Amino acid sequence: MATVSPTPLLKDELDIVIPTIRNLDFLEMWRPFFQPYHLIIVQDGDPSKVIKVPEGFDYELYNRNDINKILGPKASCISFKDSACRCFGYMVSKKKYIYTIDDDCFVAKDPSGKDINALDQHIKNLLCPSTPFFFNTLYDPYRDGADFVRGYPFSLREGVHTAVSHGLWLNIPDYDAPTQLVKPLERNTRYVDAIMTIPKGSLFPMCGMNLAFNRELIGPAMYFGLMGDGQPIGRYDDMWAGWCTKVICDHLGLGVKTGLPYIWHSKASNPFVNLKKEYKGIYWQEELIPFFQSVTLPKDCTTVQKCYIEISKQVKVKLGKVDDYFNKLADAMVTWIEAWDELNPSGVKPAELPNGASK
Amino acid sequence: MATVSPTPLLKDELDIVIPTIRNLDFLEMWRPFFQPYHLIIVQDGDPSKVIKVPEGFDYELYNRNDINKILGPKASCISFKDSACRCFGYMVSKKKYIYTIDDDCFVAKDPSGKDINALDQHIKNLLCPSTPFFFNTLYDPYRDGADFVRGYPFSLREGVHTAVSHGLWLNIPDYDAPTQLVKPLERNTRYVDAIMTIPKGSLFPMCGMNLAFNRELIGPAMYFGLMGDGQPIGRYDDMWAGWCTKVICDHLGLGVKTGLPYIWHSKASNPFVNLKKEYKGIYWQEELIPFFQSVTLPKDCTTVQKCYIEISKQVKVKLGKVDDYFNKLADAMVTWIEAWDELNPSGVKPAELPNGASK
Repeated sequence: MATVSPTPLLKDELDIVIPTIRNLDFLEMWRPFFQPYHLIIVQDGDPSKVIKVPEGFDYELYNRNDINKILGPKASCISFKDSACRCFGYMVSKKKYIYTIDDDCFVAKDPSGKDINALDQHIKNLLCPSTPFFFNTLYDPYRDGADFVRGYPFSLREGVHTAVSHGLWLNIPDYDAPTQLVKPLERNTRYVDAIMTIPKGSLFPMCGMNLAFNRELIGPAMYFGLMGDGQPIGRYDDMWAGWCTKVICDHLGLGVKTGLPYIWHSKASNPFVNLKKEYKGIYWQEELIPFFQSVTLPKDCTTVQKCYIEISKQVKVKLGKVDDYFNKLADAMVTWIEAWDELNPSGVKPAELPNGASK
Repeated sequence: MATVSPTPLLKDELDIVIPTIRNLDFLEMWRPFFQPYHLIIVQDGDPSKVIKVPEGFDYELYNRNDINKILGPKASCISFKDSACRCFGYMVSKKKYIYTIDDDCFVAKDPSGKDINALDQHIKNLLCPSTPFFFNTLYDPYRDGADFVRGYPFSLREGVHTAVSHGLWLNIPDYDAPTQLVKPLERNTRYVDAIMTIPKGSLFPMCGMNLAFNRELIGPAMYFGLMGDGQPIGRYDDMWAGWCTKVICDHLGLGVKTGLPYIWHSKASNPFVNLKKEYKGIYWQEELIPFFQSVTLPKDCTTVQKCYIEISKQVKVKLGKVDDYFNKLADAMVTWIEAWDELNPSGVKPAELPNGASK
């Protein structure tokens, strides 16, 4: 039933990053869409466990031992026993684009019953501009059958480079533990046929389940923080990355899109376990959001790395007093950038400033 | 086929405002939805022409002579030979809510083929809170089957009062003349099943074709400017109102929603005529958008009226040099507020500041 375009888009320019603790049987369903691409599998937990990958996929796999060997002491910035470890995959990739997906995510169907090629849609989102400076009421103006509406300034219609494509989830929505507990039976059945740019200045909750980004433009901001083993919180890895990323995209004049494509999220995680991981995050985020809403980056922060280091300094100064955890996190942010630059020496090109870059 | 709720929502608290130059046969299609409500018809153009309203509707009709009689010299702020005249209806209404619709808009069908009760959806949008301070990736968190996603601060989940509900259009999209000329055959066939809050700090192109608002909260900002007869531009009436309204909503902590409901927009207006009306607006808006993006209102602007007068002053100072038209417009903005307060003496209550109000 699945329609695969004969020449997969960006076949040699995109890696699929999958964090996992189990055999990757879920890839069977994705085979028609993912098989042409290279996979980077980041094995979490016990490194002696063997992860089975279905035949025919081209992949490299890193377990904790590999991470420690490659990064040495800097491996401390990569979380253990938490899917936050996925960001190691972003770092070792040599490609321009990354798609990351959880291993409990399956192919969803559009309202006509057709299998959704999520990766293909993400690539289209990334290759087409964003419009963060003014809201278009008919959603993505670049889609077939849509355009900029009356009153949209012509000078802004060229748009800016898209750095991030945030996809959504049918079936199990991405709720926090309290909402899971209160609404255990809620399922997302609403297919909203829209892609939109999140306006400049507006933060959003970025979920790592079904996410693509331009690694050259924004890669170093996609650090998933310190979560899991030995850390006081979990399930804020993607949120942290999202807040940092959005602030940096706004500063550098890059776009963040959300909406299509949907994946089918198969199984709700245990809300009691989640509550334990989340509860500090739930009250910390009340301070984190105002912090990120008020972060300003100086003009000389012209690369993602510079922006990120600047944010780490502000985290230490302003969030260190919320909890000592944020001092550790700020240090890990610096380590992450050092490790990134070490693995990407001549480097991922610094993000060229597209038109509209300002602050 | 149409489903009408047995007791229409807000039956005695909402007026439907329709600007027109022709017989209102279009109301036949809306009868099941509109008949319980009171209509305010603002007749544009030749006042001696008789406008026929289908039987059974409860309405009051104002032509130019009536407007002149009621407002005296202040009638100068109400446009003539332009649908911008509709804002006179907002002023004479005594209701809490307004829905305004163009007479070339018909009942649209949802994807299941059911007639869409646009008014009912607008009312639901207005009665339910907005979330301008943080983006929710599953769109309106208050809809059935949706909620706030993981990472959404709990302190912001109460939302703020909704001041505006901006509905969309199937069939003929609301394009400017250049886009109409370039894409004469484009039709909007995409039904996007979403309602969303336009984030604080983000401007949008507000279209007056299918628009509802809370008159008590934002009414005095809904001035449609000086357009049409004797004026250098047209088709920027709703845009002007939208920019002023959004800036004031952001300042007062009120919400603006866009998305559902759709109406069926039957006929594209003449792009050549539109180009003539729009062309000054098309280049002026390149200055207007940065102006509105940088407007800040002082803390003592605690009512819509005070905010609006403050904006009129800034228009004079900063846009007067773009064209003398903006000096006239700034004066008309003041006249509009004077006329509003005269007709609404003990007055529409000043907008209570809901939680989240700030700047």
